[in-house]
Amino acid sequence: MAENTGNNRINIKDKAVKGYMFAGKQSIAFKNPPYIIAEASIVGKKEGEGPLGTLFDQIIEDPMIGKDNWEEAESELMKLTAQKVLMKAGLKNTDIRYLIGGDLLGQLIATSFGIVELHIPVFGVYGACSTMGEAMTLGAILVDGGYADKVLSITSSHFAGAEKQFRFPLDYGNQRPYSATWTVTGSGAVIIADQCNNKNSGEQNIVITGVTSGKIVDYGIKDSMNMGAAMAPAAFETIKQNFEDFNIQPNYYDKIITGDLGYVGKNILIELLKEKDYDISDRYMDCGIEIFDKDTQDTHAGGSGCGCSAVTFTAYIVKQLKEGAWKRVLFVPTGALLSQVSFNEGNTVPGIAHAVMVEAKKG
Amino acid sequence: MAENTGNNRINIKDKAVKGYMFAGKQSIAFKNPPYIIAEASIVGKKEGEGPLGTLFDQIIEDPMIGKDNWEEAESELMKLTAQKVLMKAGLKNTDIRYLIGGDLLGQLIATSFGIVELHIPVFGVYGACSTMGEAMTLGAILVDGGYADKVLSITSSHFAGAEKQFRFPLDYGNQRPYSATWTVTGSGAVIIADQCNNKNSGEQNIVITGVTSGKIVDYGIKDSMNMGAAMAPAAFETIKQNFEDFNIQPNYYDKIITGDLGYVGKNILIELLKEKDYDISDRYMDCGIEIFDKDTQDTHAGGSGCGCSAVTFTAYIVKQLKEGAWKRVLFVPTGALLSQVSFNEGNTVPGIAHAVMVEAKKG
Repeated sequence: MAENTGNNRINIKDKAVKGYMFAGKQSIAFKNPPYIIAEASIVGKKEGEGPLGTLFDQIIEDPMIGKDNWEEAESELMKLTAQKVLMKAGLKNTDIRYLIGGDLLGQLIATSFGIVELHIPVFGVYGACSTMGEAMTLGAILVDGGYADKVLSITSSHFAGAEKQFRFPLDYGNQRPYSATWTVTGSGAVIIADQCNNKNSGEQNIVITGVTSGKIVDYGIKDSMNMGAAMAPAAFETIKQNFEDFNIQPNYYDKIITGDLGYVGKNILIELLKEKDYDISDRYMDCGIEIFDKDTQDTHAGGSGCGCSAVTFTAYIVKQLKEGAWKRVLFVPTGALLSQVSFNEGNTVPGIAHAVMVEAKKG
Repeated sequence: MAENTGNNRINIKDKAVKGYMFAGKQSIAFKNPPYIIAEASIVGKKEGEGPLGTLFDQIIEDPMIGKDNWEEAESELMKLTAQKVLMKAGLKNTDIRYLIGGDLLGQLIATSFGIVELHIPVFGVYGACSTMGEAMTLGAILVDGGYADKVLSITSSHFAGAEKQFRFPLDYGNQRPYSATWTVTGSGAVIIADQCNNKNSGEQNIVITGVTSGKIVDYGIKDSMNMGAAMAPAAFETIKQNFEDFNIQPNYYDKIITGDLGYVGKNILIELLKEKDYDISDRYMDCGIEIFDKDTQDTHAGGSGCGCSAVTFTAYIVKQLKEGAWKRVLFVPTGALLSQVSFNEGNTVPGIAHAVMVEAKKG
């Protein structure tokens, strides 16, 4: 494997196929890298008590968020987050050309009821916990291509709603194996735009330079309490493809960040990539590992859910990029494509991972 | 309201905002209108016995499609349809840059398990029964913008899986009110491409010239057995916006075709548009009304489901365009954004509708 010597700031545009925006087998290099002009994160009490607690825009102590059931609570969470990101950007709902959103609930009801009052044309998307990657990918494409000037990409998840839907009612008090993850109660949103806010301020702007979109990968895992193992092969395939499509090495990025592989999936991913001579261990991070304190919060393998990568990205990763701690990251939300029905019918848990290349760029 | 006199073939590109591909409030006029180079439809026995029976590519008599449960049956249906459309286009799975797919089942399991073997990068989408509109919209954007040369857009639904999920188990034998629709067992797929197949043949090529993407519209309907009424306001808003964004009258189209409003929703839509001085009654069609014979098939208000508009489009509408019976249609799949959970919790049934402008163009 060739060493990426000297200046590793390759011109990814050169890798695009002539006449097309796409690069290699399954990537896109954006011609006019869209800006992330605002980001917002709202989380629940437990997430607020975790290591990233001080970074979130808002922590809501009431798990019902003032509503009558878990589903409406999650809708409210998404609504508040959408309002927050609009406020932070100084925009109104009518300034947004499209909203791209999704969640884990059947028929995306957290999204439908959460955003109905915004009256923005909407594309509902589903990629399980990789949904933020899909929403940001499509948002960046719409903006880069001139189909939109501003897109709002948003996802959410809620611990109690997810447990009720995928596992057991909370009242049942089931024991959780150590391979299980804890669904994050949280919603994260970004506004992707064709113009940056800080043209002359000297602040770092955040841009999306490219994407590698995932295939569904099924290694035959059947344990819904071990989703890290189910998703790691999908993350592996997408990250490897990103390296190949752009002819880069792991050191092209300051951080390579998966969504919610947790402690189990982390080790599998690192091993799978090592077998292909890619060592990401010195720059690897997982949102599910970052968001909770393993020792004090009893969250076992880590956090998960559509909200996990979304709030970690918007609260922590964007901040690190803005402050110059990192220049360039590969953000890879990961999803386990199961339902309670497919699980009960004895089906496998296929995985998917969507990679988004994010950079800090001087304003 | 100004009469659209003389040549009603307006140049929709003129309506686009300078520097952007978008037109008016929520539409896009494509610069390089993508081609639909192949289409396929596979349906169940009942759909095969309906008025469009002879037009489908395949009719599968076994409702289990050789599988052990309804969900796997629907996955198999989608897989067979994806294979069929690839075969009809003379393409392999590796020729397809992206697959955009969705279905009605929680967490889109019909799609995930149906397409896993194709190994194509995938965007899962959900817009209830409007999903084919969303999948074709995003497919056309990806191709028009040069992000893909070929995209496969696909949706499916299955009567028994939908009844089990949204209403009652079939064995319960519940009575269906006359406002209820019958979920279509079927899957429809198109391949959207930047190059047409029939450059010199003189045959009609089918192109997507523009789209108007829907907002979520909630008029407060709470009856999941009357989805036509729930979706009609969303269809109304999207169709009206299409007319306004392109400054056209209904006679711009030979047909204006909704997805599955059925007999109840049809009348509401026509009335709502009449109140705004748009009379579509002489060129209006609904896929849900076309697909079953009301008098002999006992399907009450008509067909519905992600598969309803998808198979009617691929089997019937494309054929009419190819044969020159129609030159230009507005295809408006309609969706009711409910889940069994939101319904049981007493929530409303919001609607959404995504309009796709489709034209026949001499090769």
